[in-house]
Amino acid sequence: MQIGVIGLGKMGLNLALNLNDHGHEVFGYDSHAAVEESGFTKTSSIEELISKLSAPRTVWLMVPAGEVTETVMAQVAGLLETGDAIIDGGNSNFKDSIRRAAELKEQGIYLFDCGTSGGTEGARHGICSMIGGDAEKFKDIEPLFKDISVENGYLFTGEAGSGHFLKMVHNGIEYGMMQSIAEGFEILNKSNFDFDYEKVAGVWNNGSIIRSYLMGLTQNAFSKDEKLDGIRGVMHSSGEGKWTVETALDLNVPAPVITLSLMMRYRSLEDDTFTGKVVAALRNEFGGHAVEKK
Amino acid sequence: MQIGVIGLGKMGLNLALNLNDHGHEVFGYDSHAAVEESGFTKTSSIEELISKLSAPRTVWLMVPAGEVTETVMAQVAGLLETGDAIIDGGNSNFKDSIRRAAELKEQGIYLFDCGTSGGTEGARHGICSMIGGDAEKFKDIEPLFKDISVENGYLFTGEAGSGHFLKMVHNGIEYGMMQSIAEGFEILNKSNFDFDYEKVAGVWNNGSIIRSYLMGLTQNAFSKDEKLDGIRGVMHSSGEGKWTVETALDLNVPAPVITLSLMMRYRSLEDDTFTGKVVAALRNEFGGHAVEKK
Repeated sequence: MQIGVIGLGKMGLNLALNLNDHGHEVFGYDSHAAVEESGFTKTSSIEELISKLSAPRTVWLMVPAGEVTETVMAQVAGLLETGDAIIDGGNSNFKDSIRRAAELKEQGIYLFDCGTSGGTEGARHGICSMIGGDAEKFKDIEPLFKDISVENGYLFTGEAGSGHFLKMVHNGIEYGMMQSIAEGFEILNKSNFDFDYEKVAGVWNNGSIIRSYLMGLTQNAFSKDEKLDGIRGVMHSSGEGKWTVETALDLNVPAPVITLSLMMRYRSLEDDTFTGKVVAALRNEFGGHAVEKK
Repeated sequence: MQIGVIGLGKMGLNLALNLNDHGHEVFGYDSHAAVEESGFTKTSSIEELISKLSAPRTVWLMVPAGEVTETVMAQVAGLLETGDAIIDGGNSNFKDSIRRAAELKEQGIYLFDCGTSGGTEGARHGICSMIGGDAEKFKDIEPLFKDISVENGYLFTGEAGSGHFLKMVHNGIEYGMMQSIAEGFEILNKSNFDFDYEKVAGVWNNGSIIRSYLMGLTQNAFSKDEKLDGIRGVMHSSGEGKWTVETALDLNVPAPVITLSLMMRYRSLEDDTFTGKVVAALRNEFGGHAVEKK
């Protein structure tokens, strides 16, 4: 198939190369990235990119969620025609995807919200994709997903928003799994035993119940820095975990471990906490317990 | 090698069959189980089992942790000689393993505490094992672990207790991973989308960041009962999660997500909670908010 890919960052470029490997005719555009390596055609503007595609067109957006996606999608939609399709492969909020799909539908343009997992390596050699949108139109573009995903690694998830919803929850689960693994190693690290963490992650990744892609990444990380001495324990986050917790709140769903995993990320951003000051001050107030002076 | 296996339950029998498959001369004993299928020699008492083995003997205990292990190990030790070895493959508390290893050392008997993961299927076809004990003596029995484990699936973890310690923490991580996965599906289940959970677990297990053995088991479970309608959400536990949390407390280690995963298991054992009654009563006291009458 012909496909336009907008956004050739780490994920978008690898995806374009992956599509190209599978014999699709790829036209790529990025407003910033100077893309050297590739086997596909680069264009110098969104207009040029769209002009290269024959109707019905398919345009894959791989740009940052939020404002950028909003702006680029509006620009692309202005250049498309009835029957064309946009795939939003970024981590958009599922509520935005529901709204945008409804807006684009009025123009006769299909929006597919595609949650993609697997990281940059996955984008290059086989991703996991979860796609929401129009079921009939999906049949036309399904070959794309089949080609760029690992075997059994794509799923049409139903109505608009369901793909990004599923990816969001996936990320929430990921937060909890990562925190669980990390707390386990924290306990090992404070224990009186002398474990080799790379070997521990290695043996846990071979035959154990907790073997997982994340445990493999844990092994990789320890292979590079045996006690992670070169890294500060600051855990940033990029939105999907927060949305998962917000969604749990909206749905009145108890999801305490995913929520706490997010909270522990926030805690890690603080060198000291006001909570800590308040508790220390209160212990001093009622019991005369010493506080640590700043 | 010659090896005696005591305890032919789900794990022990599969382990004995696995050892037998690898050409080891296995003698098995169980006080209860009537073992039919097997290719190894069954004995009718611990005394008979020990008498079949030539020195230096190796006896693998696969019996329930706690009192049973304590009793059986004492009986076995009374029949062994200097230079013999006991492998405790159960989920003993690592503190017990440290104590027992020291006691047995006085008799010249080696104790290896072997944490085993992989379930009954793993025991049959390849486990993950983590073994603490005497480093020199370990070399003599290493072939056993190499044979019954998956490739790169065994690790000598150091001094006595370290194997069971590592297995304990493994189980703590498992609690957190399982709770994280489960909360994700809880959110899906309360959402307005109509997901096929078997397919969701399937796609998440192919190429995604959260692909894992547990996600595969999740897929299996949903394949048998698409909404798990036939199961009550009661989450029992068998001790290692509790020990992980106790250890975290002893070591002053913050492990909130593992801890909360354990607490959520306890919560699941209650149809109603006294906590709930107290909070409902208090809301009524201060704000006149209605309580639900029993």
